[in-house]
Amino acid sequence: MQSTTIYPVPGISLGTASAGIRQSERDDLLLMALAEGSQVAAVFTRNAFCAAPVIVARERLVVDGEIRGLLVNSGNANAGTGKAGEAAARQCAEAASVQLGGGSVLPFSTGVIGEPLPVERVLGALPRAVTALSEAHWQQAATAIMTTDTVPKIASRSLEIEGCRIALTGIAKGAGMIRPDMATMLAFIACDAQIARADLQAALTAAVDATFNCISVDGDTSTNDACVLVATGQTLALSPTHPGWASFTQTLQSLCEELAQAIVRDGEGATRMITIEVIEAAEDAEARRVAETVAHSPLVKTACFAGDPNWGRILAAVGRAPLTALDVTTVQIWLDDVQVLSNGALHEGYREADGAAVMARSEYVIRIALGRGTATARMLTCDLSYDYVRINAEYRS
Amino acid sequence: MQSTTIYPVPGISLGTASAGIRQSERDDLLLMALAEGSQVAAVFTRNAFCAAPVIVARERLVVDGEIRGLLVNSGNANAGTGKAGEAAARQCAEAASVQLGGGSVLPFSTGVIGEPLPVERVLGALPRAVTALSEAHWQQAATAIMTTDTVPKIASRSLEIEGCRIALTGIAKGAGMIRPDMATMLAFIACDAQIARADLQAALTAAVDATFNCISVDGDTSTNDACVLVATGQTLALSPTHPGWASFTQTLQSLCEELAQAIVRDGEGATRMITIEVIEAAEDAEARRVAETVAHSPLVKTACFAGDPNWGRILAAVGRAPLTALDVTTVQIWLDDVQVLSNGALHEGYREADGAAVMARSEYVIRIALGRGTATARMLTCDLSYDYVRINAEYRS
Repeated sequence: MQSTTIYPVPGISLGTASAGIRQSERDDLLLMALAEGSQVAAVFTRNAFCAAPVIVARERLVVDGEIRGLLVNSGNANAGTGKAGEAAARQCAEAASVQLGGGSVLPFSTGVIGEPLPVERVLGALPRAVTALSEAHWQQAATAIMTTDTVPKIASRSLEIEGCRIALTGIAKGAGMIRPDMATMLAFIACDAQIARADLQAALTAAVDATFNCISVDGDTSTNDACVLVATGQTLALSPTHPGWASFTQTLQSLCEELAQAIVRDGEGATRMITIEVIEAAEDAEARRVAETVAHSPLVKTACFAGDPNWGRILAAVGRAPLTALDVTTVQIWLDDVQVLSNGALHEGYREADGAAVMARSEYVIRIALGRGTATARMLTCDLSYDYVRINAEYRS
Repeated sequence: MQSTTIYPVPGISLGTASAGIRQSERDDLLLMALAEGSQVAAVFTRNAFCAAPVIVARERLVVDGEIRGLLVNSGNANAGTGKAGEAAARQCAEAASVQLGGGSVLPFSTGVIGEPLPVERVLGALPRAVTALSEAHWQQAATAIMTTDTVPKIASRSLEIEGCRIALTGIAKGAGMIRPDMATMLAFIACDAQIARADLQAALTAAVDATFNCISVDGDTSTNDACVLVATGQTLALSPTHPGWASFTQTLQSLCEELAQAIVRDGEGATRMITIEVIEAAEDAEARRVAETVAHSPLVKTACFAGDPNWGRILAAVGRAPLTALDVTTVQIWLDDVQVLSNGALHEGYREADGAAVMARSEYVIRIALGRGTATARMLTCDLSYDYVRINAEYRS
């Protein structure tokens, strides 16, 4: 599902401004103002070197009472910057809080790691971001948080529960390709329902696990990754016992999936999006390990770039995945509907032209059946191209 | 240490021939004939999809009495070829055995996965390989086993124990870069000492663990990886209780290290060789996990290609390594002798020009001190360049 209409979320206004953090021309600062009574849930990177804004935002979520704003800058990750970086994040967030007339503000940063955040430039641009605040500025917000992204990523849904319309809109940035290894992924999602913090957190965690975490190795997150879900409480009250809860959580997951797919499609240098589907695994964790091993294999990814059905590389990746006693004679592999491997060897009816036809597609599925059980996993990945090397070799120059 | 003299190994003769397996011009078949009484030790891939020749060679090492030959082809890995592939490997090995006048022959293959081995071409070329057999043909042998390698890899040592000269010479192939993920690494090493099979195996396993296994993730081996050590028994009898044993095993390890470094230097598209050194880890396994995570990070490797001291990527890789409760404030990072990170933040005296000067070198060390204990690990890796993508996107075309 691709969003065509972007629904404003009552209770959320967004303002952007150019702080000149890295480039002078573009807006690189985003302020999201949250209505009084908004509830905020978030998941953060598990990287031990988490960035200063992550430390500050995580702490404020626990300690502070009401969150009234989110302040996001691109161009500088404020990571690897030690105590000075934390102080910088606090200073910017507090200035934003003053501008918004009180309440706590959570800071987020994305961009190059290890350079000091130019606090004065952020503070100088803040009033312009406040002036620009509007419920209509989702598109501008999605653009302001981009780094190596080539397109803004935005998704929106409207659902009706008991005759009441609920708007769900989110933005994301991230062009980290193989894995969000750089300070890559940020997502900010809001809805206007009224949801208690704990329920909101549970809904977000479940949605992220099934979507954003399937474009990244579990635990293999960057220094700055964060995904925030806000409920502004302007419309219907929802909770897990409400008959409309499942509809809400499904819609949330579908929105996250759209943003996650947008990140993979815009992967650095990506020319194709490939879904790795593992079925018939003995358990979920094992299915995921196989999916991850294939999804991250540079040799599989370069073959995908070339459109070359070099299935031996898929097989080699499956074979080196950390499984206990894999019997290869139970393994089958398909490229979309073309069976390539049956019982551990080349499928009898397989013709290279059929495999090549699938791998010439811009999106396709590599399906791997292990013959060990009923567990499944799914990962989204993209190909590894010259442009990935170019983008990452030239990122700072 | 770089070998300049190649010492023939009495009891080993080598013959190459062109079988036209993939290209018609070059020699792609190697026959190594072993003198009567030779002992053979080997380590093989742990990939569940191991190639047909690996299955056959492993079985013959256990079942057959005397090994009198090694038959190696490049251009085709005979992997993912099922029972037909095993039959093909057996047929070639048996033909070689007949040509050599009896004794068992172990088969090895390297090249593209998933295509049937052209048995008739191998059989047709065998007599020419037999005719070419000579103790002097190590260089030709090293060339015949190349696939995407750009240079033959050969190392040689001569050591004296109790007035007796022992020759140790080996060849290797492998340009698998990030990890030997393709059907990449093969090494054949021979010495003329007299060593019992169990002792030979112990010496080989220890040497491989400290060298070839440090350019690859543990267990993350390809379908065809194999390393063979032959002792022809033409000179001194050695065993672990012999006073010269340590000298022998040290020389063997040094030879393996030279070949392992040659593989990394010739890594696909590689322009630099980087040593990842992890110190002050709580235990060996943890040190290795950190070294591997950094060594395999595409973002670290593209920064190395660019010569860009983007140390944030090193930090992010350390931070996502699977460690329990890493306290980043005890972490230090150096590029050669330039300290970049101290106590988890940018080192005060660090100047970007100093980091850039190190990363402009063709070989350097990234040293990471974890501040958790005394365990260490070391991995060799190379950079990720446009040419890696080109080579692997065009490999089959």
